[in-house]
Amino acid sequence: MSQEEIVEILDTAKTMKHILKQNNKRTPHLQGKSIVNLFYENSTRTRLSFELASKYMSASSANISASSSSVAKGESLIDTCKTIERMGADVIVIRHPMSGAAHIAAKHVNTSIINAGDGMNEHPTQALLDLFTVRETKGTIEGLKVAIIGDIYHSRVARSNIWGLSKMGAKIAVAGPSTLLPIELDKTGTKVCSSVEEAVDEADVVMVLRLQKERQQKGLLPSLREYSQIYGLNMKRLKLAKKDVLLMHPGPINRGVEITSDVADGIHSQIQEQVTNGVAVRMALLYLITRQRRQHDATLY
Amino acid sequence: MSQEEIVEILDTAKTMKHILKQNNKRTPHLQGKSIVNLFYENSTRTRLSFELASKYMSASSANISASSSSVAKGESLIDTCKTIERMGADVIVIRHPMSGAAHIAAKHVNTSIINAGDGMNEHPTQALLDLFTVRETKGTIEGLKVAIIGDIYHSRVARSNIWGLSKMGAKIAVAGPSTLLPIELDKTGTKVCSSVEEAVDEADVVMVLRLQKERQQKGLLPSLREYSQIYGLNMKRLKLAKKDVLLMHPGPINRGVEITSDVADGIHSQIQEQVTNGVAVRMALLYLITRQRRQHDATLY
Amino acid sequence: MSQEEIVEILDTAKTMKHILKQNNKRTPHLQGKSIVNLFYENSTRTRLSFELASKYMSASSANISASSSSVAKGESLIDTCKTIERMGADVIVIRHPMSGAAHIAAKHVNTSIINAGDGMNEHPTQALLDLFTVRETKGTIEGLKVAIIGDIYHSRVARSNIWGLSKMGAKIAVAGPSTLLPIELDKTGTKVCSSVEEAVDEADVVMVLRLQKERQQKGLLPSLREYSQIYGLNMKRLKLAKKDVLLMHPGPINRGVEITSDVADGIHSQIQEQVTNGVAVRMALLYLITRQRRQHDATLY
Repeated sequence: MSQEEIVEILDTAKTMKHILKQNNKRTPHLQGKSIVNLFYENSTRTRLSFELASKYMSASSANISASSSSVAKGESLIDTCKTIERMGADVIVIRHPMSGAAHIAAKHVNTSIINAGDGMNEHPTQALLDLFTVRETKGTIEGLKVAIIGDIYHSRVARSNIWGLSKMGAKIAVAGPSTLLPIELDKTGTKVCSSVEEAVDEADVVMVLRLQKERQQKGLLPSLREYSQIYGLNMKRLKLAKKDVLLMHPGPINRGVEITSDVADGIHSQIQEQVTNGVAVRMALLYLITRQRRQHDATLY
Repeated sequence: MSQEEIVEILDTAKTMKHILKQNNKRTPHLQGKSIVNLFYENSTRTRLSFELASKYMSASSANISASSSSVAKGESLIDTCKTIERMGADVIVIRHPMSGAAHIAAKHVNTSIINAGDGMNEHPTQALLDLFTVRETKGTIEGLKVAIIGDIYHSRVARSNIWGLSKMGAKIAVAGPSTLLPIELDKTGTKVCSSVEEAVDEADVVMVLRLQKERQQKGLLPSLREYSQIYGLNMKRLKLAKKDVLLMHPGPINRGVEITSDVADGIHSQIQEQVTNGVAVRMALLYLITRQRRQHDATLY
Repeated sequence: MSQEEIVEILDTAKTMKHILKQNNKRTPHLQGKSIVNLFYENSTRTRLSFELASKYMSASSANISASSSSVAKGESLIDTCKTIERMGADVIVIRHPMSGAAHIAAKHVNTSIINAGDGMNEHPTQALLDLFTVRETKGTIEGLKVAIIGDIYHSRVARSNIWGLSKMGAKIAVAGPSTLLPIELDKTGTKVCSSVEEAVDEADVVMVLRLQKERQQKGLLPSLREYSQIYGLNMKRLKLAKKDVLLMHPGPINRGVEITSDVADGIHSQIQEQVTNGVAVRMALLYLITRQRRQHDATLY
């Protein structure tokens, strides 16, 4: 994805957000299109965001969750996607615990695939909504110092954001338990800090990651109380950042663990706004993807 | 909720029921609006009733069930509701095992909240559909004798109906296992009877409650067979009521436990009609709530 | 169902398939109608096919799955269907593990019932989509030799197809483990072959059944490896059929068990096309059923 493509999505999302704020949210952008959400992992938040984005634009939308899917019958991801494609789906939104799952699917079907998170690997729409939020609040992304705090290693949110923010010209500093900082980070130009204080110092943006208890193997982390003391974002630490710092978190937050309630609910926080931006960005993406296909079809037929 | 508000809902529901009987049930009442059903307890009946009510009126409708929700990730009810609000939901319909859950949510979000049942506490839309059914069948509610039979203590249906029926001027008599009759009932003007026969005697309306096996602690109840013999509504007991008695049950019924099949399927029963009325009342409520908000917006902007 | 009725459905499905291939798939055929999918068994494939078919034609569509339904509360199938009917459903699509379940439901409600598979008994829409696929590929069904390979005994797909194909004039030959061939087959004019080779020989159409591991009692089957060797369809066996043989499978396929990948993905295979035809046939059926009802209503009122 090029910088131009990212800008096009963010610009379109701005229009979509305007629609979202209307009294009547229904638009005909996806009339006659069909979106299937194929979720091999539970994620009500992301699923609901895509589902509502689809419905606001008048698409036919249907959900498949792993527990009730043919997966139980041993069907492969590729066969499942081919089946969904043949039922007329214009877009398949995939959430999968395996890194690369969406990419594999995209290689084998003609229907558009959107990656809604694949294992520890990527979560592109989260990165896009974060870029949108930064740009909306700060006016630009280029040249900003962005601190990302937490378990970088297991976080597809961090991985996707480091990629997207770098692409758009931000300088990134990360901090977290040293066992959970990927070694290859330096190569991306990301500064690995030895403390949260160092990362947050003079930052324009602070992104706190969710502590994903369920994903961590034992032994990589101190106790929750220790984690909170050493890496948790509290008001004292936030004050090291710039005065107009933008605070973000992908949600849902663990209050009192990776972030204190006064910070999460404070004046710098755009955590709630990120949720709205998530729907807007997904509307933009669904619209642009199906529109491209339409133009493509127009060329072919 | 005032008596006037109840009457407005019942009047609107009458129109909605008319629409429900049409060949084409689709109306534009909720076009561009978004309804999210947030269910922390299984209740296919109530969820389906709200979902279809929303869809008949052209709303975008989405479901969240506890098992698949972020609740599993430890997100609080309030944070979940704020997230759903920020995704553009105009109404959140909440079913929750904890008494007062919907009230707590309503205090913390601006989006309209509808309580679809909270623990042993309330089930307002059930009470409204019961009021609708009584008024439709009897022409009025005021002055009627209504017998409510069963486990009053654990029943939010009973609690809500006693409130609503009293408000509308009915006289209420209850009967059930003495361990399952709340002590404070007398204060509400409700007559606590020592036998089903006494409660049903000359009643205009008999409401049988569902025996909620799953909710009762051990020791509060005799065996099902004994319960049926002492408290079950059979034809002999129903004959003690007025000749044109109206028989109701919130469903689903336990045939042969709290009610015999000949009574449930007999000429006095409006149990099936209650289901239709439930959809009509929910359509009315969703319409009135979103319309108020619309008028309110109109004032502001 | 008469031969004329089958032809009417197949003809209508042809139109529906044309719509499915359009850029804009949304049609107003079921505007104002309501379809409820009541699934007591997991079948994402069939459920999604019906759900998308409903949505493409602008119906209100809702899903109930057994695990979350009142079934858990002990409500009977008939009471559940009556409740759904009373909520305004025009069609209830039922999938149930018990043979005859849909028929029982149809006897007790006025709403149209579609059987989406009942135990080992029937799967009529699968048979219809298979008839559609044969007619579309071969131009006709009459006089064709159709080989059905696999566990005939447990397969509602086989049962329904044998009925439908015979009705339309095809000659059927079956092969499979002798313990899994129903004794009464001969009476239907079906030829029971002693080997896959004999059944496939000079066949116009080969239908491979899915090996339903979860449904077979122990002892009826050799090991999967042995099954594959003796009954699995590979390229060598397929070459015994006519040169332009049509290969079908209801899906999802167990690659390397009942069918090899080169056969499943080969030039004779219409397995993917069957999926599209399934949606088309279900659109046709939903349309015809609700249209009949509409005409019927027109007569009454």
